[in-house]
Amino acid sequence: MIRIHQSVSGAENVQPFDLTDRGLLLADGLFDTSRVVGGRIILMRAHLARLTGDAAALGIEVTPEALEALAGEAVPGGAEGALRLTVTRGPGGRGLAGETAGAPTLMARFSPMEMPYPMPPVRLGISAIRRNSTSPTARHKTLSYTDNIMALREVVAAGHEEALLLSPDGKVACASAANVFARFGNRLVTPPVSDGAMPGIVRGWLLQAAIGAGFETAEESLTPDRLTQADGIFLTNSLRIFQPVSTFAGRSLDTSLPPALIQLGHALLEGAFDD
Amino acid sequence: MIRIHQSVSGAENVQPFDLTDRGLLLADGLFDTSRVVGGRIILMRAHLARLTGDAAALGIEVTPEALEALAGEAVPGGAEGALRLTVTRGPGGRGLAGETAGAPTLMARFSPMEMPYPMPPVRLGISAIRRNSTSPTARHKTLSYTDNIMALREVVAAGHEEALLLSPDGKVACASAANVFARFGNRLVTPPVSDGAMPGIVRGWLLQAAIGAGFETAEESLTPDRLTQADGIFLTNSLRIFQPVSTFAGRSLDTSLPPALIQLGHALLEGAFDD
Repeated sequence: MIRIHQSVSGAENVQPFDLTDRGLLLADGLFDTSRVVGGRIILMRAHLARLTGDAAALGIEVTPEALEALAGEAVPGGAEGALRLTVTRGPGGRGLAGETAGAPTLMARFSPMEMPYPMPPVRLGISAIRRNSTSPTARHKTLSYTDNIMALREVVAAGHEEALLLSPDGKVACASAANVFARFGNRLVTPPVSDGAMPGIVRGWLLQAAIGAGFETAEESLTPDRLTQADGIFLTNSLRIFQPVSTFAGRSLDTSLPPALIQLGHALLEGAFDD
Repeated sequence: MIRIHQSVSGAENVQPFDLTDRGLLLADGLFDTSRVVGGRIILMRAHLARLTGDAAALGIEVTPEALEALAGEAVPGGAEGALRLTVTRGPGGRGLAGETAGAPTLMARFSPMEMPYPMPPVRLGISAIRRNSTSPTARHKTLSYTDNIMALREVVAAGHEEALLLSPDGKVACASAANVFARFGNRLVTPPVSDGAMPGIVRGWLLQAAIGAGFETAEESLTPDRLTQADGIFLTNSLRIFQPVSTFAGRSLDTSLPPALIQLGHALLEGAFDD
C-alpha cells in the first residue's frame, strides 16, 4: 500500500509519485473531505465508513483503520481546517482493465483554514449538465469530478456562485459540491439518492439529528418549481455545514436559518455528535 | 507549463509530481490515446486537434505544437505501441473552483506493444450504467473514466469482454473504450454524438474514408434491437482500429469484416491517411 500524507502546503506538494497511478490516469478512485476543529475530525466514523464503503463498491480494499492512521499523521494537533482523504486503485497497466498490484494508493492532505459558521448565503443557478443516477459517480464520491467542475464554471459565468444539478427527468439532485435542503415551515426536505443526490455525510447526519431538534425531515423528490415555493433553501456539506441560498431561479429568498438549526450546527462543530 | 514524458515503463514511473494537480484530485483534465507504427503516430493531426479542442472546452489552454514536441520526445524512433497524452488544469488550490497558476500539466507516455490487426472478436454486453449526453465527459475525452471502468467490470463479471453503454432513453451510445458500428450490407451506421457517442478519431476517420472505399456511412440512432438485426457489429478505436463483435445480447454474430474494410485499416496503419 502506498501512503502519502501532507500536513501543510508548499514545496512538499511535489513528491515522488507513480505516474501509472490509475487515480491520476483514469479517476479510478475516491475521496472524502472532512472538517477539522481543534485537531478533531468532525463525524470521523461516518466519513471513514463512507469512504471505505465507496472504495469497496469500486472493488478497492481499504480499511477504516489504515485511513484513520494516515489522517492522524496529516492533521496537526489543535488544527482548524479541511482534511482530504484520497484512495485510488493504485499504479497499474495500460487500459481500463489494467492489472494492478492490488495495492491501493492512500493520500491524506490537511489544509489549514478558518471558516465562518454559518456560511454566508450563496446564489444558486441551474446547470445544463444533468446528474445521472445510474452512474457510480452519482452515489459514490469518486474522483470523476469533471461534471461538477464544469457545472460550477457554467453557473459562475452566468453570475451565480453554486450550481444545482438536476436528474435527466428534471428533478433536483444536488449542488456541485453540496446537498440541497428545502425548508417548508418545520419540515426539511432533501432529494433521495435515487434522484442523483450524493449521500453526503452532513446530509445523512442532519436527516437524523434534526428530528431531535424538533424538525421533521424527509427524503422526497423535488422539482425546481417546488424549490421556489420553500420558506428557505440551504446547502449542506462537511466544510460549509449549512449555507443559505440567497437567490434561485431569479428569486430572492429568505436567508435566515431557524435558530434550532444553527444551534444544531454549533453542537456538531463542538463534537457533540462524534463517537 | 509542467512537462513530463516517459518512454518506457519501469522504475522511471515514479517521478516528482505535484500532488495538488487537479488531474489527480478531481479528474480535471483530458487524455488521448494513439497508435504508433514504425515510430509514426497514426492520424496525429486529428489526435492533437481533438485533444486541444477538448482542453479548450474545459478552459485549459494548450497548443498542438507543445503536445507534438512532447510526443516526439516520448516515442522512440521506429517504435510500435500506444502513446497516451494527458493534459490537466495543473496544480491548484482546494475546491472545485480552486485557483491554478494557469499552467497546465502535460504528460506523454509511450507503451511499446504489438497488436494484431484486425483484432480478435469480442463478446459485447450491455451495462446498466447509462451515458449522459449532457455531461462534458460524454463528448470530451476527460479523465473522468469511473463509469467506463465500472461498466467494463460489470459486463466482464457477467462473462462478456466489452461493455455497451446506452443513453438514458435506451439508445446505443458507445462501448467503454470504443465506438460501435453496425453494418447493414454496404452501409456502416454509428450513433451520433448527441446520443452520447464519444467522437472517436477512428470513428470520424472511418465515416469519411469508408465512402472512398465504396461504403455508405451514416450517423444514426441505434437501439439494441436494431443492432441485433445488423449483418455485423464492429468496434473502433485508435489502438484496435477494427474489432468484430462475436456475441451480443445472447446472439452469435458473423465476425467477418468486409475485405474492403480490412484493406482500409491496413492503409491507415501504413500511414496513407496521415498528413
